[in-house]
Amino acid sequence: MTEMNVIEMDGRGAAKVMRLATRPIPAPGPGEVLIRTRAIGVNRVDILQRSGQYTPPYGIIDVPGVELSGDVAALGDGVTGMAVGDAVCGLIVGGAYAEYCAVPQTQVLRLPKDYDYIHGAALPEVHFTVWTALMQHGRYKGGESLLVHGGSSGIGTTAIMLARALGAGDIYATAGNAQKCKACEDLGAAKCVNYKTADFVEAIGDLRGDAGVDVILDMVVGPYVPKNQSLLAPDGRLVFIGLMSEQREVQINASSVMMKRQIITGVSLRGQSLAQKAAIRDEMEKVVWPLLDHGKMRPVIDSVYPMAEAVAAHKRLETSQHIGQIVLTVDPA
Amino acid sequence: MTEMNVIEMDGRGAAKVMRLATRPIPAPGPGEVLIRTRAIGVNRVDILQRSGQYTPPYGIIDVPGVELSGDVAALGDGVTGMAVGDAVCGLIVGGAYAEYCAVPQTQVLRLPKDYDYIHGAALPEVHFTVWTALMQHGRYKGGESLLVHGGSSGIGTTAIMLARALGAGDIYATAGNAQKCKACEDLGAAKCVNYKTADFVEAIGDLRGDAGVDVILDMVVGPYVPKNQSLLAPDGRLVFIGLMSEQREVQINASSVMMKRQIITGVSLRGQSLAQKAAIRDEMEKVVWPLLDHGKMRPVIDSVYPMAEAVAAHKRLETSQHIGQIVLTVDPA
Repeated sequence: MTEMNVIEMDGRGAAKVMRLATRPIPAPGPGEVLIRTRAIGVNRVDILQRSGQYTPPYGIIDVPGVELSGDVAALGDGVTGMAVGDAVCGLIVGGAYAEYCAVPQTQVLRLPKDYDYIHGAALPEVHFTVWTALMQHGRYKGGESLLVHGGSSGIGTTAIMLARALGAGDIYATAGNAQKCKACEDLGAAKCVNYKTADFVEAIGDLRGDAGVDVILDMVVGPYVPKNQSLLAPDGRLVFIGLMSEQREVQINASSVMMKRQIITGVSLRGQSLAQKAAIRDEMEKVVWPLLDHGKMRPVIDSVYPMAEAVAAHKRLETSQHIGQIVLTVDPA
Repeated sequence: MTEMNVIEMDGRGAAKVMRLATRPIPAPGPGEVLIRTRAIGVNRVDILQRSGQYTPPYGIIDVPGVELSGDVAALGDGVTGMAVGDAVCGLIVGGAYAEYCAVPQTQVLRLPKDYDYIHGAALPEVHFTVWTALMQHGRYKGGESLLVHGGSSGIGTTAIMLARALGAGDIYATAGNAQKCKACEDLGAAKCVNYKTADFVEAIGDLRGDAGVDVILDMVVGPYVPKNQSLLAPDGRLVFIGLMSEQREVQINASSVMMKRQIITGVSLRGQSLAQKAAIRDEMEKVVWPLLDHGKMRPVIDSVYPMAEAVAAHKRLETSQHIGQIVLTVDPA
C-alpha cells in the first residue's frame, strides 16, 4: 500500500473547497516519526489556511491540519525512545488531514494514560499554545489571578484547567452565551462573564478592585486591549494569542505600562522555531502530561466527524456554537 | 545645631520658585540612615516635581531631589553594616536638596573605590533606573544588541557603559547633536544617530537588517513606539523609561507582537515598592559596584553648582544641552 486518503484544498475559499483525494504515503525524514492517523483536531487556523488568510511557512500547504493522534508506523533516521506501534499525538505545521503524517519527533508525545485517540488528537495544538502563552510568555505562577477570553474554546478550557491544576488564584473568563459561561465555571472559573450581555471590565473590576488581574490571555485583541490594560495588575502580563477582532493596530497607555510595570506581549505557535517547539514539548512532558495521566485535566470534546466530512466539521467551527474541540476520525478510533 | 539649609519650592512653577530656606535636621527613623549631604544629583524628575507635573507618593514633597552622596551622620534603629562617618550615596523619593537627609538603608550604597562625592551623587538615580529597566525589565543578556534613546543623558550614558561592561553585542543610541553622538560613540556605542538630521529607523535598520535590536530603552515614547517596534528583534524587549513626548496613548502592532513574540513593557523607579528598590540595590551591589570599583564604568559629569544656585542648575538641565549629570554641592566636595 503506497497511497493514502487526504483532504486537500482545491484552491482557497469556503468549506466546500475541501475534497477527498489520494496522495503517496510520505516517508519519515531524519528525526521524523511516521504516524498512522486515527484522529485529527480541527482548529481555527485550518479555516484561516483554507480561506487563504494563512499559509504555513514550510511543509505541506494544500492539506490542512496541525494536530493528530495515531500509532507510530515507521521511524526516520536518528529517532530514539519511540517504537512502531506506540500510541502518540503530534503537532505539525500542516498536512494532518491525512491517513499518514510525518511529524518531527520533538513535536510528538505519547498518549496520556487511559486516553483514546479522539481525546489524544485534541491535545497538541491547544497544549503547545497554552503552555507557551500562559507559562513561557505569561510567566504564570500558581496562586496568581487569570482572565481568559474565549473561555469555552479549546484554548480557553485548557488554560482554565491548567491554571487550576497548578494552584491558581481566582480564574475569570469571558464567553458568548450562558451555556458557555456555565461550562467555564464548571471547569473552575470563579466567574465567567457573558460579553454579549455584560461589560467584562465592570464585572471583573468589581470582583478584583485595585488588585487587578495578574495574567490575561487575549485572543480578541483590537478593542479589547485598552479594556484588558485597565484590568491588568501591577507587574501583570497581557498576552495576545489571537486576532479575532482582525484589528492589528491597537492602542495602549504608556503611562500605565510604566507606573504599573505592565508587560504586553504575544505569541504565535507557528512563529516559533523547531527548537522552541521542542522546548515546549519537553516542559509539557514534565509538568502537563502527569496531570493528564492522573485526570487532573482532560480536553473537552465538542463533536466528532469522519475525516471525509471535514466540510461539516469546518461549518460547525464557523458557527462558534461549539464548546471544546471538534475532531475528525480516520478509522473508528 | 538643629537647623539645616534646604532648597524649598514656593509653590509650583518655573525654576525661580526654588529658594534657600532652613528646616529642622531630621532624625533617622527605624531602618533609616541620616546622611550629611556633600553632593546632590539634579534630575528631570526634580523639574517635573517643581513644575507640578509630579508629586512624590510619600515623604518630603516640597523639597526636590532624589539622590545624594555624603557621610553617615547617624543610624536609625535596626540599621546594621554601616557606621557613622562612612562615605555613601543614596536614593530617596524627595528631599535631597538639603544639608541632611534620612534615607532607608535599603537605598544606601557605599561610595565605590576612589570616588569623590560629586561622582557618587551621580550614581543612585541613573543606576537604580538603568538596572531595573535594562536588567530586570529588559532582561538584557550579555551579547545582545541594544538601542538607547537619549544616549547622552545620565541614563543613556550609564546604559551604554553597563551593557558594554557586561559584554554587549552592538550598542546603538540616538541623540540630538553631533557632539552628543560623539560622546555616545566614545563610550562604546557602535553608532549614535543624530535624530535631528537622520531617520533612526533607517540608519539602524540598515545596520541590523532582519536581525533587529534585542532591547530598546525608550524615554521618548509616543511617536517613537511604532518606529521602535519596527526595529525590535524576535523575542525583543521595548522598555518605556520616560514620557518625554508627553503622549500617553500610543499605537502598537499586535500582529508583530505575536509573530515576533515581542515584549512591550516599562518601568518607573518611583512606582516601585521599598522591597523592590531593596532588591535592585542588592543586585547592583553584587554586579555593578565591582565594575565601578574597577573603573569599568564611571558617571559623566556635565557641570557642578553650589546648592544655593539650584535655579541655574535647573535652567541648564532645561536647555537639554548637557552631557551627563548635573550636580549640586553643599560643601566643597
